[in-house]
Amino acid sequence: MDFELRPVTPAGARLVELAQRHAADFATRADQHDREGSFPFENIEAMKQSRMMAACVPEEFGGLGVDSIHDYVLGINRLGRGDGSTAIASNMHIFRSWWTTRAWRAARAAGDEGQTAKLEQLLRQIGAGQVVICALISEAGTDLLHPLTEATRTDGGWLLNGHKIFGTMSPAAQLLDVACRVKDPHGGARRALARVPARGAGVEIKNNWDALGMRGSGSHDVVFKDCLIPEAELADGGRWGEYAEPFLAANTVVTMGLVGAFLGIAEAARDHVVEIAKTRRSRSTGRVLAERHSTQHAIAEIEIDLAAARAMLARTATVADAFFRTHPAGTVPLGELHDLSKDFQCTKFFVNRKAVEIVDRALTASGGAGYMSKSPLSRLYRDVRAGPFMQPFSPNEAFEYIGKVTLGLDPTIDL
Amino acid sequence: MDFELRPVTPAGARLVELAQRHAADFATRADQHDREGSFPFENIEAMKQSRMMAACVPEEFGGLGVDSIHDYVLGINRLGRGDGSTAIASNMHIFRSWWTTRAWRAARAAGDEGQTAKLEQLLRQIGAGQVVICALISEAGTDLLHPLTEATRTDGGWLLNGHKIFGTMSPAAQLLDVACRVKDPHGGARRALARVPARGAGVEIKNNWDALGMRGSGSHDVVFKDCLIPEAELADGGRWGEYAEPFLAANTVVTMGLVGAFLGIAEAARDHVVEIAKTRRSRSTGRVLAERHSTQHAIAEIEIDLAAARAMLARTATVADAFFRTHPAGTVPLGELHDLSKDFQCTKFFVNRKAVEIVDRALTASGGAGYMSKSPLSRLYRDVRAGPFMQPFSPNEAFEYIGKVTLGLDPTIDL
Amino acid sequence: MDFELRPVTPAGARLVELAQRHAADFATRADQHDREGSFPFENIEAMKQSRMMAACVPEEFGGLGVDSIHDYVLGINRLGRGDGSTAIASNMHIFRSWWTTRAWRAARAAGDEGQTAKLEQLLRQIGAGQVVICALISEAGTDLLHPLTEATRTDGGWLLNGHKIFGTMSPAAQLLDVACRVKDPHGGARRALARVPARGAGVEIKNNWDALGMRGSGSHDVVFKDCLIPEAELADGGRWGEYAEPFLAANTVVTMGLVGAFLGIAEAARDHVVEIAKTRRSRSTGRVLAERHSTQHAIAEIEIDLAAARAMLARTATVADAFFRTHPAGTVPLGELHDLSKDFQCTKFFVNRKAVEIVDRALTASGGAGYMSKSPLSRLYRDVRAGPFMQPFSPNEAFEYIGKVTLGLDPTIDL
Amino acid sequence: MDFELRPVTPAGARLVELAQRHAADFATRADQHDREGSFPFENIEAMKQSRMMAACVPEEFGGLGVDSIHDYVLGINRLGRGDGSTAIASNMHIFRSWWTTRAWRAARAAGDEGQTAKLEQLLRQIGAGQVVICALISEAGTDLLHPLTEATRTDGGWLLNGHKIFGTMSPAAQLLDVACRVKDPHGGARRALARVPARGAGVEIKNNWDALGMRGSGSHDVVFKDCLIPEAELADGGRWGEYAEPFLAANTVVTMGLVGAFLGIAEAARDHVVEIAKTRRSRSTGRVLAERHSTQHAIAEIEIDLAAARAMLARTATVADAFFRTHPAGTVPLGELHDLSKDFQCTKFFVNRKAVEIVDRALTASGGAGYMSKSPLSRLYRDVRAGPFMQPFSPNEAFEYIGKVTLGLDPTIDL
Repeated sequence: MDFELRPVTPAGARLVELAQRHAADFATRADQHDREGSFPFENIEAMKQSRMMAACVPEEFGGLGVDSIHDYVLGINRLGRGDGSTAIASNMHIFRSWWTTRAWRAARAAGDEGQTAKLEQLLRQIGAGQVVICALISEAGTDLLHPLTEATRTDGGWLLNGHKIFGTMSPAAQLLDVACRVKDPHGGARRALARVPARGAGVEIKNNWDALGMRGSGSHDVVFKDCLIPEAELADGGRWGEYAEPFLAANTVVTMGLVGAFLGIAEAARDHVVEIAKTRRSRSTGRVLAERHSTQHAIAEIEIDLAAARAMLARTATVADAFFRTHPAGTVPLGELHDLSKDFQCTKFFVNRKAVEIVDRALTASGGAGYMSKSPLSRLYRDVRAGPFMQPFSPNEAFEYIGKVTLGLDPTIDL
Repeated sequence: MDFELRPVTPAGARLVELAQRHAADFATRADQHDREGSFPFENIEAMKQSRMMAACVPEEFGGLGVDSIHDYVLGINRLGRGDGSTAIASNMHIFRSWWTTRAWRAARAAGDEGQTAKLEQLLRQIGAGQVVICALISEAGTDLLHPLTEATRTDGGWLLNGHKIFGTMSPAAQLLDVACRVKDPHGGARRALARVPARGAGVEIKNNWDALGMRGSGSHDVVFKDCLIPEAELADGGRWGEYAEPFLAANTVVTMGLVGAFLGIAEAARDHVVEIAKTRRSRSTGRVLAERHSTQHAIAEIEIDLAAARAMLARTATVADAFFRTHPAGTVPLGELHDLSKDFQCTKFFVNRKAVEIVDRALTASGGAGYMSKSPLSRLYRDVRAGPFMQPFSPNEAFEYIGKVTLGLDPTIDL
Repeated sequence: MDFELRPVTPAGARLVELAQRHAADFATRADQHDREGSFPFENIEAMKQSRMMAACVPEEFGGLGVDSIHDYVLGINRLGRGDGSTAIASNMHIFRSWWTTRAWRAARAAGDEGQTAKLEQLLRQIGAGQVVICALISEAGTDLLHPLTEATRTDGGWLLNGHKIFGTMSPAAQLLDVACRVKDPHGGARRALARVPARGAGVEIKNNWDALGMRGSGSHDVVFKDCLIPEAELADGGRWGEYAEPFLAANTVVTMGLVGAFLGIAEAARDHVVEIAKTRRSRSTGRVLAERHSTQHAIAEIEIDLAAARAMLARTATVADAFFRTHPAGTVPLGELHDLSKDFQCTKFFVNRKAVEIVDRALTASGGAGYMSKSPLSRLYRDVRAGPFMQPFSPNEAFEYIGKVTLGLDPTIDL
Repeated sequence: MDFELRPVTPAGARLVELAQRHAADFATRADQHDREGSFPFENIEAMKQSRMMAACVPEEFGGLGVDSIHDYVLGINRLGRGDGSTAIASNMHIFRSWWTTRAWRAARAAGDEGQTAKLEQLLRQIGAGQVVICALISEAGTDLLHPLTEATRTDGGWLLNGHKIFGTMSPAAQLLDVACRVKDPHGGARRALARVPARGAGVEIKNNWDALGMRGSGSHDVVFKDCLIPEAELADGGRWGEYAEPFLAANTVVTMGLVGAFLGIAEAARDHVVEIAKTRRSRSTGRVLAERHSTQHAIAEIEIDLAAARAMLARTATVADAFFRTHPAGTVPLGELHDLSKDFQCTKFFVNRKAVEIVDRALTASGGAGYMSKSPLSRLYRDVRAGPFMQPFSPNEAFEYIGKVTLGLDPTIDL
C-alpha cells in the first residue's frame, strides 16, 4: 500500500497523471537549470502543449477542468517531485486560472455579461496556451498587505511606479498581475491589482534572480517606471493594509499550491534516500545500509514526518474545497475565511518545516553522499528551504496570526 | 469554523453525540476518581444504559451499529475529553464488539453456522449490557508477541497460569480475554486467546493499580492459578512470537481507539487554556492573558500540533476503514497489513507525542495555574503521558518497526 | 570518568559532600512526603544540625563559608537528586544568607557600622540554626516587578496587606521576606522588601499547597492583614515596575540555585534509568534492556541533553562568580547586569526544559515501569515540571527578555 | 559583557587574536571561493607567514607554542567565523602539529633519541612554513576503523593502493597522512598510517571536490596506485577494526577543532542577523526589524542555542586538556579514553546540530534576505551542514556509541 496523496476528482486524476509524466521529464534537467540558474522555458512549453498550464481552465475553454483545490495542489505536488523551480513557477500561473474561473462563475451567476465575457476571453487564451500570467505581489521592506508600488491617476488610466521582487515565472509571462497602492480620493489608500503586459513600455524584468535554491524559477525583480495602465486593467482589492476577501482567499489557495510543491520536494528526497539505503552496500561488511539500526531509525523519522505532512495538507485542502464551494466569489464571510486561513497557516508552517526536516534527515541518512553536488539531495536541500519564506506568512508572523485568530483577536500582524 | 474531527457515518454521528453527552457528565467526577484512584463504575453503568458500551454491536442485536473505525475512534476521542480513564477502559470493551462483529460477518459469509450463532449470542449479551469484556495482553518482562502466561492441556480443556498486567476495565468485566502461550504438540509454541469468566475460580484481580495517571482506569494485575478453560474458549492466534493477522489487525484497531482517547485529552487541555487566556486578567494591567504576544505564540504552537494530530488520526482511520472493508476477517494479506500497521504506528507515535506536548504547552500557557492540583491540567498532564506506553509499540520499538517495514525488511523487533 | 559538575572552592567541596549525604537520606522519605503532601521538617532540622542551612554564612559566624555561586548551586543540585521539594525550599533560605553576607561585606567596606552589626546578627542567628527565612515574592495576577501587596504608612512603621503565593519553606520559617509596593510621597510607587516574623499578628500561612509536584515544598499561600512592620524592617527596592540592582541580582542568583535543583532531579532520573537498563532482563530473551538498540538510543539522547545542561549551568555560574566579585553590592552596572541576566535566562530556559525532557525520556526508556507510582520516576516527572514556572522568567517571557537584551532594546516585558 | 569563548593560556590568547585578524581578511574572499569552488591558496600562504599554521609547534621550533586543546579549538573557531572552508582545511594541518608535539614530548621523556630527532625535524619544517600536512582517513563504503586502502610488503617498504575521499587541504599539502590496512603476518590485519609526499609517484589528487558547501576546502579524492612507501614512513595503529589509543585520541582532538569551526560559522550567522535586525527598517512603518516580537523571539532562540553550544564545547575542551595532560602519549587508559570520547561525541552531536539550527533560524529571522546568493547566510547555511558528516561519528552512529559507552557495553558500532 502506498500512502501518497491521491486525487479525488476525475479531472484531478488526469492532472496528477499528467504532472507525474512531466515531473519525470523535468527531473532529468533540474540539476542543470539549478547549476546554471537558467529558466526552464522548455518545461513551460511542454506544459502548454499538454494543457497542464491550463489545468484549472474549464474544459469548454480548452483546459483540463480541474476545480478541486485538493487536486490542483496535488498536481503542483507531483511537479515538485521532479523540479521544484518549475513547480512553484507554474503554480503562480495555474492558480490565476483557478481564480479566474471562480470569478467567471460568479460573474455569470450574477448576470454580469461584460465581466463574464472578459474573463472567458482570458480563460480561452490560457486554454490555448497563448497567455502565461506572473503575479508580482512582494516588495522589499514591506508586507503583502501594504504594497508601496503606486498607481497614480493619469489621463485614461494609471501610471504605475515601483519595484517588485520574487517575480517567479516572469521570464515566460505575457501578463503581470501587480499588487499596488492607489490613493483614495477621500484621503485613504486602497490595495489594487494592475494587469500589465510583461514586455510593455515602462516594465523592466531585471533577470537578476540568484539565490540559494529554486534557481530555475526565474524569480526576478521587476521594475515599473511610469508604466501606463488602462482604466479597466486595475482591479480594486480593498483598503490598503486591511484584510479583505480577495487578498485572503487568493493567498490561501495560491500558497496551498506552493506547499504542495515543497511537500513534493520532501517526497523526492525520501524516495531517493530509501533507494540508497536499500541498495548501497558497505565494502567492509557487504551489508546494505538498510540493515543498520541507525538507518532504520532515520527512515522512520522521515516516514512519520512525511505521513503527518501529507495528512495535514490533504485535510486542509479538503476543507478548503468545501468552504469555497459553499461560498462563491464575493460572498465569503471574512471571519470564517480567517478561520480557514488560520487552519491553512497551521498547515503551511507545519508542512514547510517538516519538508525542510525530511530533506535534512535524508541528507543524514545518505551518509555524506547527499552532500555532493552530483546528488539531487544537495539541490533539494537548498530548494526546500524556500518554503517557509513564502508569504503569507513566514514562520514568526504565522504564530502571531494563528494565535490571534484562535483567541478571537484582530489578526492584524504587529509589524 | 471548527476543525475538530467529525463522524462520517450516521451511526457514528449518533455515537459521537452520545459520547459528548457522557463526557460532559464524566468530566464532573474525573478529578475525584483521579484523587481516589477509584474506578468509575457509575460511568460504565451509564454507558450500558445509553448503549454506548454496545457502540459497535449491530443494531439488530441491540447496539448502535457503528461499523466505521473512524467513527468508533471519534466516540472514544470524545470520551477522552471528559475522562481519559473511562475512555481507555471502555475502548478495550468496545473494540471487542467491533472485532466480534467483524468475525461474525465472516463466519456468516462462510456459512459457519456454529460460529455465527456463538458470536451472535455474545453480541446480543453485549447489546443488552450484560457482558463487559476486558483484554489482558500485557505481561512484565516480555512483549505482546511473546506472552509467557501458559495454557497447558488438561482433561476437557486447559489450565491457565500466569500474571498479566494493565488489566484496564477489569473491575467491571464479566469476561477476560487473556493472551497466552500454548505448547505445540510438534515442539513449537503458539499464541492463543483464552476467554475466562472474570470472577471464576483461579482468577485473582489484584486491585493494585496505582500509577502516575489514568488512575481511574482500573488497570489492575490479574493472576491466574490453574484456572480451567473449556476447550471451546481458547482460540488459536498463530505461532508464538510471529506476526499474524489476528495479532496485527486487532492491535492496530484497538490501539487506534486509544490514540483517539489521548487526542481527546489534548483537546480538553487546549480548550481549557484558550478559555483561561481569554478570560484571566492581569491585576496590574487589566489586560487579558490573550493579548500577550507570548500567549499568542504558545497558543499557535498548540493549534499547529493539534491540527496535525487530528489530520493524521483522521487519515489513518479513513485508510483503515477502506482496508478492512476490502479484506474481511481471515483474508487480510499480511504484507499489506504491515503497510497499514506501519502507517498507523507513524500516527500513534506522532499523535501521542503531540498530545503530550500540547498538554505541556497548555501548562506553560496557563502561567503556573495549571500546576495546581485543583486545575484539570494537572490531571491531564499525568493522564496523557500514558499514551506512548501503549503497546504495540512504545516509541523506540515504533521507530524500528516503521523503519524495517519501509525498507522492505522483516519487521520483527530486535528485543 | 564522571562528568558531573564539581565544586571549585574548598568550602564548596565540603558543602557538596555534605549535601550528597543529606540527599541520600532525604531520598528515602521523598516518596512518602510526596504522597502525603507533607513538609519534611526533619530534613530541615538535619540541615540545621549539619550547618547545611548555614552554607553561605561566613565561618566566623557559624556557617560553612561558601562564597562561590557555582558551589552554592552545586550544593542545591545535590539536594535535588535526593528530594526536589527539600532542595527548592532550602534554596530560598540558603540564598538569603549568601545575599546577606554580600550586603554585610559591602556595609563593612563602606564603614556603615549600624548596618554591619545588624546583618552580622542575622548571619549569626542563621549560623546557629535559629532562623530560617522564607521569601514571598509571587502573587496571582501580576509579575515579580509589580507586587500588589501594599505597605502603607502608619505610626512607627507600616501596615502590610496582601496575598502572596508560592511561599516555599513557609512551614519552617521564622522570618518572611515579603515583596510589596509602597506609595511614593511624590506620587509614584516603589518596590520594597518587608521582613516579618512568620508567626506574628496579621500573618496567616494557609497550609494549602496542593500541586502536581514539589508536594513537600510547603509552598503555601500567605495572607497579610494589617500586619505591622517596624520602620527598620522595610527596605527600599527601587521604583515599582522597573528593573533595579536588588531585584535583578537577587533573582539571578536565587533562581540559579533552583535551576541546580531541577538539574539534580534530571540526574536522579538518568541514574535510575541507566541502572534499570543495565539490570532488568527480558523474561523471553534473557537479555538486559541495555542491549537493545532502542535503549542505547534513548540513553544517548539523555546523555547529550544532560551534558549540555550541565555545561551551561556551570558556565553561567562561573561567569556570575566573576561578575559579582568584580561588582560589590550596590555598585553593579545595570546594563552589564542585564547582560548577565540574559545569559542566565538562556541557561534557565535551556536547563529546565532539558531537565523535563530528560525525565520524560527516562520514563520512555523505563518501558512503562516508571509510570507506576512506586517508581521514583513518577515523582520526578511531576517535580521537574515545576522548573519552567519559576520566576523570573517563565518560558515565554524569557524569550522576550533575551531577545530584547540581545538586540539592545529596553528589556521590560510587554505584559 | 560578551559571552564568546576566551582563551585560557597566553599562547592561546595570541593565537586567537591572530586568527581573528586572519578571519576578517578571509571573510572578504569567502563568497568568491565558494562561488568558484576554488582553493584559498593565499589564505594558507598568509597563515604560513603569520605562523598561524604553526600554532601548535613549540616556540623553540618556530611555532606559537599553543599546547591547550581548548585554545587551539578557539583558534579554529575564530577562523570559522571568517571562512569555514579555510578553517576546516587548516585544522587538519594544525592538529597534526599538536599531535606531533605530543609524540615528541613522549619520545623525549622516554629517551628515544631517534624518534625525538625525527619529530623535531618535522616540527621545525612546519614551524618554518615548509610543510603542510593533509590527513586522508575517509573512504567510500567503509568507516574510519576499517580502511580498505592497502599497504602491501615490497622490497624496502610498502606499496600503497587505494582511493581516499575528503582530502581536505590536499591542494596545498606537501605531505599526506594516509590511513590504510596492512596484512598481519599472523593472519589478521592492522590499521596503519602511511606518510606520503603529496606530489610523488603513484599519487593522484583528483581536483574533483564539488559539494553543497565547504566549497573552498579542496576536499578532493586522492588515489594511490602502487605508491612506494619507505619502511620508516608507515606507523602501526593497532588492530584493524578495533579501537586503539592513536585512533581514538587523535580523532577526538582533531574533530574537536572541526566542531570549533562549525560553531564559528553559527556565530557569524548570528552576528549577521542581529546586525540586520538592528538596522533594517520597514518601509511601511519605519520601525527596525528588532522591534518586532517575532524577531525578538527568533533571536532569543538563537541566543539560547548558541550559549548552550559554546558552554558545551568549552567544557569538553577543558576536560580534554586535563585528561591529555594527565596521560602522555602512549599511556592513555582506553576505558577512560572512551569516557572522554563519549563526552566529546555528545558535544559534537549537539554543537553541530545547534550550529545548523542557528544558521537556519538566522535565515528565518533575515526575512528572506538571507536566501539570496549575495547574502553570506546563503553560504553559511550550506557550509554549516557539513558538520554532522564529520567522522567519527555521524549522528546516528554517535547515538549508538554514546549509548553503549554509558551503559558499559563494548562501544563498537554495529555496521
